[in-house]
Amino acid sequence: MGDPAGIGPEVILKAVGTIARRPKPPAIVVLGDLGTLRATADRLRGYTPRLCEWRPGMPISWSRGCLAVLSIGSLPTKATMPGKPTVEGAEAAYRYVLEGARLTMRGETSALVTGPINKEWLNRAGHHFPGHSELLARLAAVRDWRMMFAGGMLRVALVTVHVGLAEVPRLLTRKRVLETITLLDQHLRVQLRLERPRIVVLGLNPHAGENGLFGDEERRIITPAIRLAQSQGIAVHGPVAPDTAFVRINRTGRFDFDGAVAMYHDQGLIALKTLEFDRAVNITLGLPFIRTSPDHGTAYDIAGRGVANPASMIAAIDYAAKAIGGAARPVTGRVSHLASGRGPTTIQRTSRGK
Amino acid sequence: MGDPAGIGPEVILKAVGTIARRPKPPAIVVLGDLGTLRATADRLRGYTPRLCEWRPGMPISWSRGCLAVLSIGSLPTKATMPGKPTVEGAEAAYRYVLEGARLTMRGETSALVTGPINKEWLNRAGHHFPGHSELLARLAAVRDWRMMFAGGMLRVALVTVHVGLAEVPRLLTRKRVLETITLLDQHLRVQLRLERPRIVVLGLNPHAGENGLFGDEERRIITPAIRLAQSQGIAVHGPVAPDTAFVRINRTGRFDFDGAVAMYHDQGLIALKTLEFDRAVNITLGLPFIRTSPDHGTAYDIAGRGVANPASMIAAIDYAAKAIGGAARPVTGRVSHLASGRGPTTIQRTSRGK
Repeated sequence: MGDPAGIGPEVILKAVGTIARRPKPPAIVVLGDLGTLRATADRLRGYTPRLCEWRPGMPISWSRGCLAVLSIGSLPTKATMPGKPTVEGAEAAYRYVLEGARLTMRGETSALVTGPINKEWLNRAGHHFPGHSELLARLAAVRDWRMMFAGGMLRVALVTVHVGLAEVPRLLTRKRVLETITLLDQHLRVQLRLERPRIVVLGLNPHAGENGLFGDEERRIITPAIRLAQSQGIAVHGPVAPDTAFVRINRTGRFDFDGAVAMYHDQGLIALKTLEFDRAVNITLGLPFIRTSPDHGTAYDIAGRGVANPASMIAAIDYAAKAIGGAARPVTGRVSHLASGRGPTTIQRTSRGK
Repeated sequence: MGDPAGIGPEVILKAVGTIARRPKPPAIVVLGDLGTLRATADRLRGYTPRLCEWRPGMPISWSRGCLAVLSIGSLPTKATMPGKPTVEGAEAAYRYVLEGARLTMRGETSALVTGPINKEWLNRAGHHFPGHSELLARLAAVRDWRMMFAGGMLRVALVTVHVGLAEVPRLLTRKRVLETITLLDQHLRVQLRLERPRIVVLGLNPHAGENGLFGDEERRIITPAIRLAQSQGIAVHGPVAPDTAFVRINRTGRFDFDGAVAMYHDQGLIALKTLEFDRAVNITLGLPFIRTSPDHGTAYDIAGRGVANPASMIAAIDYAAKAIGGAARPVTGRVSHLASGRGPTTIQRTSRGK
């Protein structure tokens, strides 16, 4: 559900309201606070479906005609006010993530979709993580993970993320670039079931260094990493000039590659957000389960006003549901229909899924 | 005219062919090789208007019904072959630029539009400049100049340009950021005649540093430069997170600001080229005259095939013509109608202009 004071509850209900109307919606369970969700549903006049309590072990499906909610702990009233973040609310959001990861790692749910949390308030609650990805990597005891972002047209995995630009050249190594290519390739093949995904790697420097004229990282690091990946059978191309890497998308409506590897945060995200901000989904590569998230924050300033756009949350749930189709074999066994909650939102499969 | 072996001659003739059909076309003189232009016009079946020779001092207008061409030097036949660059062709392209700058600095023409040259061949011809901008800055004895790019919606001035990414943080100073803001503001006010232009400045780091968490350049350098610019009366805003700076353009079709300042090449150009590659124009800020250029290279691989897209050259000529309207007072005096050539293409005003 994310931070109860943010727009998480609202975008989840709006997103589920949209998704539940489709012919075969994935089965979804929302992890969070039933009271906050009910109050949010009341504010969203016309919201359907109704909410019903769920407990681990129960089947998740739409057959009961309601959205399954797993209430975790209880919130003091002051922590349920939209737009008024509290330490208690941040602490609760933290516990929703823990429980979502636990359920998904145990295979009770097949994917985890997280709602927006606020780093500053997470810190005030004593949890010192820059964001969900770092927390989940720690919980899953994973060292090599990467942040990836996807829109309707473009998927970009990032070699470095939340560091100052001055740190980027220092952090670039062949190993890190190769790992990013490998994790992206695995995601595309296993979770998205692309047969021979095509990946493009961006250079670090203007014009991809123009033959060493503006920096030699392409020659020293990126090209060797690409060669290594190619020797492993990955269909990877580059390094290409960063500024022209994405120009054909806007003309043709589609990207020439199944995924791109960017060297740093803004290199990938300027293109993605400029082209398809509303639809951007954050995906963590390298976790032992599927995890997606809308690409926006708690937006305390508009929380409770009913104006939050659920497009990114819908895209995050859809992306997770699609990835479950591909990841069923490696990740879980017996679960059957598809279930996703929020904040974290978890997704479970109880039949063959789709 | 740019490099005779590149697509310069073709995109210029196509662009002028389009512009000449408008009700009040700017007066244009093309500096280059008449033979190459005639051969190019012959290949472009249906090309109008015809070409006629021009010499400095003659009026430039469309009243003769032909495109004025100033032939500079003569080219050996081997240097006129599309797709086959030569040292002689590169040397000629260099001389076209010199003459274009000279004419424009003398006020015979009111703006200079340069055609594509190739850095490698320019170097082989013994001229060691990374590009037109550096050469023109040298010719005009200007130290503080900046590269700017503009599309139909977005204008971006760059603090640093053709350097490796690792150099960028070192090169950022308050002075450089302030100069960029000031040069952009002058351009918008004087040349584009915007009354109180609004400028946004991007941060260097992800999320604009997130309060110093990912780099302190925003705090140490960028914010102080913005404050200084504000104290000079410039309507400048920022630093903003680079990845979300441009998201509203794609939704609304227009940018919220009259211009943006980006800290490095790809920060500005990923957004601009991804959104409006075909229409991108390169503008040099800080020269004592107006200079624009299409944002593409010589494209030797497609030269002579008739498939080159003139959109960027049309945009470059239009941008220069528009800027002349605003810059008439500060830059030149008596010239009257508008004249622009190519490769360099120069633009002259002989009446009040428009």
